[in-house]
Amino acid sequence: MITHNTQIRTRYGEVDQMGYVYHANYVSYCHEARTELLRKYGINDYVLESNNIMLPVIKFNIDYKTPAHYDELLTIETTLKEIKGPKMSFGFKITNEEGKTICEAFSTVAFVTADSRQILRTPEIVKRALNL
Amino acid sequence: MITHNTQIRTRYGEVDQMGYVYHANYVSYCHEARTELLRKYGINDYVLESNNIMLPVIKFNIDYKTPAHYDELLTIETTLKEIKGPKMSFGFKITNEEGKTICEAFSTVAFVTADSRQILRTPEIVKRALNL
Amino acid sequence: MITHNTQIRTRYGEVDQMGYVYHANYVSYCHEARTELLRKYGINDYVLESNNIMLPVIKFNIDYKTPAHYDELLTIETTLKEIKGPKMSFGFKITNEEGKTICEAFSTVAFVTADSRQILRTPEIVKRALNL
Amino acid sequence: MITHNTQIRTRYGEVDQMGYVYHANYVSYCHEARTELLRKYGINDYVLESNNIMLPVIKFNIDYKTPAHYDELLTIETTLKEIKGPKMSFGFKITNEEGKTICEAFSTVAFVTADSRQILRTPEIVKRALNL
Repeated sequence: MITHNTQIRTRYGEVDQMGYVYHANYVSYCHEARTELLRKYGINDYVLESNNIMLPVIKFNIDYKTPAHYDELLTIETTLKEIKGPKMSFGFKITNEEGKTICEAFSTVAFVTADSRQILRTPEIVKRALNL
Repeated sequence: MITHNTQIRTRYGEVDQMGYVYHANYVSYCHEARTELLRKYGINDYVLESNNIMLPVIKFNIDYKTPAHYDELLTIETTLKEIKGPKMSFGFKITNEEGKTICEAFSTVAFVTADSRQILRTPEIVKRALNL
Repeated sequence: MITHNTQIRTRYGEVDQMGYVYHANYVSYCHEARTELLRKYGINDYVLESNNIMLPVIKFNIDYKTPAHYDELLTIETTLKEIKGPKMSFGFKITNEEGKTICEAFSTVAFVTADSRQILRTPEIVKRALNL
Repeated sequence: MITHNTQIRTRYGEVDQMGYVYHANYVSYCHEARTELLRKYGINDYVLESNNIMLPVIKFNIDYKTPAHYDELLTIETTLKEIKGPKMSFGFKITNEEGKTICEAFSTVAFVTADSRQILRTPEIVKRALNL
């Protein structure tokens, strides 16, 4: 299973007046975590760019369980769930330092050409990097 | 049906290097739109606060259809979908000036006391404001 | 004098746990206000792009006077302060609904070619639009 | 001299359509770096909170030298410049992995009581932590 753990420390400007990490920020945290997973397998931004590949997000679902606060160190466990045709999907589980689940999320990105914005089947470079 | 249209002009800092509105920003747009719907029915921040009510988001699902760009005027059609026990759910449809659907989203918030963060059943003040 | 007033309603995710608009967000508000001033004079994003002009910010100074809160309607008075060689400078004064000054800021942008990122003297298209 | 180096990797949603880190984000980076400096000296969020101290920013000046891009690892060298009466000032120098200066900034925060939002002289707890 292709999985990766990323740590993110919550920033002051990411916390709202309830004292909770503002809910939209978890979307960015998951993006960061997905980037780290792909980087670990050699698929970084420059590889994508030089292969004319973009990865726009086409779906994002998130369930919030427990609020996180300012200056907490969160762990994001990211798992590649599916890669099929023009799409790649990831699951995310974010926990705090006591191991409590903050939220669980799921996102799908599409493979698109950077220049003409055409939908692509799973690029060979991605398959090879992930040993698929 | 309880519904409201809100307009938002996309900001420069909200657009990513693909030239698309960064996907996490739609979560904030939907929050803004939900706030406007509630404001229209008299449930603004001060009413909530003075009644010791907070509305943390517990679920957010979004499907991205077409990218929006910098400086586009987006319309967010917000609909109250359900209000039941400790939860209130909203649907969102975001369209651009040509009427193209940018994304569709769904969010659920919980009623929670501001001081002790206890879950609440639908507060009377909310029911009355929405004629429920 | 080239000046323009823009209104912005503060968003929930822009407020920090002190209950104040997070200080970095005023930088975006001023950008928004500067864009509106230029748009009023016919210099919108598409005009800039089709003339191969970019406007990166090279300096930003801000003094915070009074905090703004969630859901306040702020007025940003933007004034073109100077336009000279490769630079254009703007002053900003942000006030709340009671007319209290929230902050005062000053920013300078440079004229740069979009394709090769070379510094430009004030483009003719900008001079004409601003009657300079 | 009280100084600290913090590293931040730029996130996708922080980059604008020029391909540059959006200029407002450096304000958050500097906040993050200042927090890390204070944490190193034992002045973390919980210490401040339990001593009824808040640190709102009252001034921020920044000069942008070279753009940073997505996924760059930036180093923020933070220096305590002055601490006097109700104010504390910091200098920031952000460099990329090649050692190029991205920007230089300067910020001033005020000491304020968290409950009544009154201005304070430099709190003893801060003086002791910083050996002043």
